[in-house]
Amino acid sequence: MALRTRLTQRLGIEHPVLCAPMGFVTGGKLAAAVTAAGGLGLIGGGYGDAEWLEREFAAAGNGRVGCGFITWSLATQPHLLKQTLVHAPAAVMLSFGAPEPFAAAIKASGTCLICQVQTMAHARAAVASGADIIVAQGSEAGGHGQTRTTFTLVPEIADYLTKAAPETVLVAAGGVADGRGLAAALMLGAEGVLVGSRFMMSEEALVPAGLHEAVARASGDATVRTTVLDVVRKLEWPPEHTGRALRNRFVDTWHGREGELGTADTVVREFERYTRARDAGDMDNTGIFIGEAAGLLNDVRPAGDIVRDMVAEAGQILTNRREPAR
Amino acid sequence: MALRTRLTQRLGIEHPVLCAPMGFVTGGKLAAAVTAAGGLGLIGGGYGDAEWLEREFAAAGNGRVGCGFITWSLATQPHLLKQTLVHAPAAVMLSFGAPEPFAAAIKASGTCLICQVQTMAHARAAVASGADIIVAQGSEAGGHGQTRTTFTLVPEIADYLTKAAPETVLVAAGGVADGRGLAAALMLGAEGVLVGSRFMMSEEALVPAGLHEAVARASGDATVRTTVLDVVRKLEWPPEHTGRALRNRFVDTWHGREGELGTADTVVREFERYTRARDAGDMDNTGIFIGEAAGLLNDVRPAGDIVRDMVAEAGQILTNRREPAR
Repeated sequence: MALRTRLTQRLGIEHPVLCAPMGFVTGGKLAAAVTAAGGLGLIGGGYGDAEWLEREFAAAGNGRVGCGFITWSLATQPHLLKQTLVHAPAAVMLSFGAPEPFAAAIKASGTCLICQVQTMAHARAAVASGADIIVAQGSEAGGHGQTRTTFTLVPEIADYLTKAAPETVLVAAGGVADGRGLAAALMLGAEGVLVGSRFMMSEEALVPAGLHEAVARASGDATVRTTVLDVVRKLEWPPEHTGRALRNRFVDTWHGREGELGTADTVVREFERYTRARDAGDMDNTGIFIGEAAGLLNDVRPAGDIVRDMVAEAGQILTNRREPAR
Repeated sequence: MALRTRLTQRLGIEHPVLCAPMGFVTGGKLAAAVTAAGGLGLIGGGYGDAEWLEREFAAAGNGRVGCGFITWSLATQPHLLKQTLVHAPAAVMLSFGAPEPFAAAIKASGTCLICQVQTMAHARAAVASGADIIVAQGSEAGGHGQTRTTFTLVPEIADYLTKAAPETVLVAAGGVADGRGLAAALMLGAEGVLVGSRFMMSEEALVPAGLHEAVARASGDATVRTTVLDVVRKLEWPPEHTGRALRNRFVDTWHGREGELGTADTVVREFERYTRARDAGDMDNTGIFIGEAAGLLNDVRPAGDIVRDMVAEAGQILTNRREPAR
């Protein structure tokens, strides 16, 4: 069953499912697999690493993919945008910061501009920058974001776009991990979904050993929005952003003690431990960004199967859900 | 169009819409209006006030209604449950605390037991207490709650109930303010919705002068989870609960300075100001519990119209949402 929406029309894709550009997790292989299955994959440009980007665009082979950046970090090395546009990406997504320093160059190249937003104020800025697609990201999402939730942010932005920018296409992100989430997002007024955590639990995701098992064990109760993963990595995120991460020994030790963690000696020692634990597959003593949807994720699957099953399930419940169920 | 689900079957109602038992806001008139329109209204027993409860059951007239309590507060005056059961309520809902001290008496009376939960741990406790209906409340809800969001909590509890308690009926709460929210909740695996903020913006709600205008002006960006409304009222909520409230001058002044607000002299002075502002309709200097759905609420309507329009809109988008929209 096809689930055609204004998103599939705009991007020329079959299914309204985008793979989130998870920094250093969504490589070319994962992005290309999502595209090959009928969605669109976005390479996770993250903080920006020229060599990594080249490698992952190459890994995408001939697959049509997009790329996403952390906007405030891209501002420190703006040449990476030019390097990316050379690959003629299907879209460039800007998240976490003012889009307008980059919007004009992206649009001038004929590339689809996706802006991820977390508030109504961001949505207005995205429209002002000429965003073709707005991703409304709720706080249930893994990794960085803010506090508004998918369930109310999506319809409120949908109402705003209907009045202010009816051509702009709305996509929901945060908590979408299966066909139920896709169907719900469509009901709330989105034209498709951007999915992170579910694709982190794909065979193609670039993740350390042990991560998949740790997430599969976790309930959605076991995540928290925190800054400790940024403090230990000395990343200077704007203060309104926190990152949703799995509660493990590291997070439980330092959440609420961020000032102490950030002191010179401690942060050097803890970063060394954090990195060593990650490399050793010791998932209790490093950081795992994952959304509340962790409680819905129990297996690791090929990304293409994830896309196909999500769409099939959504189509099925949209069709059937008029009679008492379960 | 009828939207029959296991919730409508279980409660013998026409529409899968419950009015949340908002303490001192959902009186008998509002509850009865929701019931008369085909849903079910729950009187907001809140912290428990015997005289208020009698008055509001009387105000419900012959309407079939239920009643909800704050469980940890009910434990301090357990006789209120007996007083309530005398009215043969359609259901009793327990929120915010362990249900089992009251569950047996409710079930022994033949009354439907509704447990509101905010985490997977709560859901397991509700099943253990024999809950007939579980309300999964996301953090987007107005008033008290915790941090899990509707979008992921509902499907995770749905999966749990399928395995552990297939007869238990699941209802979604938090962020549901129109037909889009109702339809989305059904997609996520709920059999109906419990609605607060939208009914606070009804003609029948018991609210101070000025509240409706303040909420109608607000964006969903303008709410915050905080404890300052409890600190100023000297209510000793268990620490895991915060209350979502409108950001106004009072909240912006004290959020983050709770310790200072709670000191003996300050709390006496501020509570006096807070109460006086409320009575004077000065909504900037008192407290307004409201959900993130505030951004979707622009008008005050009869509760019956709210029920009918919500169901009609949900039916419409469930039927139509197979073609590109907007």
